[in-house]
Amino acid sequence: MIRVSVLQTDLYQLTMMAAYAREGMNPRATFELFVRKLPNNRNFLVCAGLEEALESLESLRFLPEEIEYLRELPSFAHIDATFFDSLHTFRFTGDVWAVPEGEIVFAGEPLLRVTAPLLEAQLVETMLLSILNMSTMIASKAARVVLAAQGRNVMEFGTRRAHGPEAGLLAARAAYIAGCVGTSNVEAGHRYGIPVLGTCAHSFIMSFESEEEAFKAYVAAFPEHATLLIDTYDTLEGARRAARSTPNLRGVRLDSGDLAQLAKQVRVILDEAGQPNARIVASNDLNEDKISELLASNAPIDIFGVGTELATSKDAPALGGVYKLVAQEDSLGHIRYVLKNSPDKPSYPGAKQIHRFFDPQGIALHDVIALADEPVPPHAKPLLSCVMQDGKRTRPAPSLAQMQAHHKNAIACLPAALCALSSSATYPVQRSAKIDEARQIALDAMPKSTD
Amino acid sequence: MIRVSVLQTDLYQLTMMAAYAREGMNPRATFELFVRKLPNNRNFLVCAGLEEALESLESLRFLPEEIEYLRELPSFAHIDATFFDSLHTFRFTGDVWAVPEGEIVFAGEPLLRVTAPLLEAQLVETMLLSILNMSTMIASKAARVVLAAQGRNVMEFGTRRAHGPEAGLLAARAAYIAGCVGTSNVEAGHRYGIPVLGTCAHSFIMSFESEEEAFKAYVAAFPEHATLLIDTYDTLEGARRAARSTPNLRGVRLDSGDLAQLAKQVRVILDEAGQPNARIVASNDLNEDKISELLASNAPIDIFGVGTELATSKDAPALGGVYKLVAQEDSLGHIRYVLKNSPDKPSYPGAKQIHRFFDPQGIALHDVIALADEPVPPHAKPLLSCVMQDGKRTRPAPSLAQMQAHHKNAIACLPAALCALSSSATYPVQRSAKIDEARQIALDAMPKSTD
Repeated sequence: MIRVSVLQTDLYQLTMMAAYAREGMNPRATFELFVRKLPNNRNFLVCAGLEEALESLESLRFLPEEIEYLRELPSFAHIDATFFDSLHTFRFTGDVWAVPEGEIVFAGEPLLRVTAPLLEAQLVETMLLSILNMSTMIASKAARVVLAAQGRNVMEFGTRRAHGPEAGLLAARAAYIAGCVGTSNVEAGHRYGIPVLGTCAHSFIMSFESEEEAFKAYVAAFPEHATLLIDTYDTLEGARRAARSTPNLRGVRLDSGDLAQLAKQVRVILDEAGQPNARIVASNDLNEDKISELLASNAPIDIFGVGTELATSKDAPALGGVYKLVAQEDSLGHIRYVLKNSPDKPSYPGAKQIHRFFDPQGIALHDVIALADEPVPPHAKPLLSCVMQDGKRTRPAPSLAQMQAHHKNAIACLPAALCALSSSATYPVQRSAKIDEARQIALDAMPKSTD
Repeated sequence: MIRVSVLQTDLYQLTMMAAYAREGMNPRATFELFVRKLPNNRNFLVCAGLEEALESLESLRFLPEEIEYLRELPSFAHIDATFFDSLHTFRFTGDVWAVPEGEIVFAGEPLLRVTAPLLEAQLVETMLLSILNMSTMIASKAARVVLAAQGRNVMEFGTRRAHGPEAGLLAARAAYIAGCVGTSNVEAGHRYGIPVLGTCAHSFIMSFESEEEAFKAYVAAFPEHATLLIDTYDTLEGARRAARSTPNLRGVRLDSGDLAQLAKQVRVILDEAGQPNARIVASNDLNEDKISELLASNAPIDIFGVGTELATSKDAPALGGVYKLVAQEDSLGHIRYVLKNSPDKPSYPGAKQIHRFFDPQGIALHDVIALADEPVPPHAKPLLSCVMQDGKRTRPAPSLAQMQAHHKNAIACLPAALCALSSSATYPVQRSAKIDEARQIALDAMPKSTD
């Protein structure tokens, strides 16, 4: 799990907490995390990051020196000592409902819902958004890359271009959930149990007097696992040398040039040299579109190594998830619907559930966003479930392999048009009548401009 | 400082180390980190991330359980126990030369050069790239945003959209170096001493029965530091209520609508209400182009809050820094130039230095990339200096304020055309004759296809 300090939050979360505390206000409040609009080139989102977020909620603590730091901030000059003292025992004690990692959701659908005392629910906004936005963004990109590969293996190796070392880890995790077979990031293997994969680099080849010596040294060290990089000097010569380097070559990697053409020539060289089991790995700024083109031209590539484009979700590098207050207990203990009145960004109050409907073949037909207390219609599947109660997880974390299996099943249930890389297909997401009623109630209760 | 495990690297770094070790090869090698091509919309790069990288080099250790994890990997089945045993005492003992954080560089120029025993120099590639690519990418974006603001303040608050919590921290740090006045990320304040800034959120306003009560509660808690968010219900009414909430209002924030028009109207309201010192903060998916437009229409905005676009470098979200072997000692202890022969990506061997030349007014004229042992011509400034020797930093880390000052000076020395947001101006970067000679020597020494 990644380690997140309680101070990895926006200052305003802490100032709002202090202002609430000063007013003696800490009603139970419900916030929902959702994405208003799908990013460019995305027909769906793949939820990821939940277990990292839950772990961070469970372990949320203010260290004494963190509290001292806050106490000294000029902004907090007029805040009473009792507020800072209360942080020593601060814990997250709320309830969380969420869509499982690997599941598919659409614009406007809550990925996660927090119900907690207002101070707690407010503090965790930034941390939840940064973990879930990042992970869901990468999983959603990875799903496209994996779909483009049509069953051939995709391996993630983008850590060097990820937004820092931790982003590399989170990217490897999200990519694996969405169907990549492994990652080059060793810590992702160590921490999450993701298969780690690798070949070798040009610098290795160049460190030896000749390519032949470099290959010989590498297969001697890794007799069953050597994938040799063959494009340092001359790719086809490299393929011949690689084929001669060991009787049971694991594979070769192409990292430059016309990958489709080279893969075909290299396949012939390997086959004629009696290396039919040697696999061809291709890399070089690959993404879903390039993979799709390579396969369309029948390139005999067995494994696609995808780095930068995947680990940064380069064509859509920010997911605009938001975390919005949707309900709050009033002084009499009644739930009050709340919303912000924004003409261009309509919002809907109340704790919600997603009902997914399927056809008899098990293909998803449409979703209905309903209030959480509406009954789930027969044949509909509710997507959010309770994953944390009173600040404790309600079940052991699923394994990443289980999440990957969940994702594979979710993809299999998706209408085919949504799985195309470029698609104008839109999945129908409706709102229940109760949601619209709740919105009207909230609008009627809203303070008027003339108040 | 961020914490980076030694395993946050690509598997192939470790397999190559093992293969080198098996051959008894560990010559001193020199690698350089540079960017082949400026990203879209960038006229220059702002170096950042160096101190984080140096700290990670100094503290690099294999923990016993990390070594156990490696030992069990199937890839390593044939690797001798002596290799794993050697990892227990593994340290980075190399030398590092680097361009200071905040300095400006261009395509092809080395930001950092590592000379170390090959195993060490190889292992640290992924970590160095992920820290420096990310930090330099964000600093380069932030410099544009700060230039666009023409002296008005820019505050970074993109953690919620950054690629995970650590990316939020690194982004805040890089943005500050490039001239932002502060960040909303509290841990960035705590860890790096960056000024932390904040306003309040819509949820705060909505948690109260009326906007007036919310404002009253916030100014009561923060009498000198309350910046009130005024667009929850009706922006102009909000401005009037904010002006009435306290005699010395710190500021208001606009987060939706026509920011230029609203800022003008709000300024009049604040001035007429006797609040000439109340500052107007604007936010809402701002970037350098939008800021430029707002200022062109004379919007009286005092502070720009920039989030997503800055913290993800959204228009250019991956910096393609590479780390290439340029020289290696041969068995006789002579330096051997090395390079990869790629027609589309020409590379230049040898340890290098950047010489920057200035006109009499101190404006940069052009750079020359020279071999590190060439003399620095009079009036030229060498950009790389020795920052680590034998694995120890050679000087105390500069403060972030010093880096920010360094950057401000570097910007002041830049030809004006390069500071424009959209520019086809190219800064002249030449190579010394010695570099081309070195390339020829390396090409002549290269193994031939017919070897």
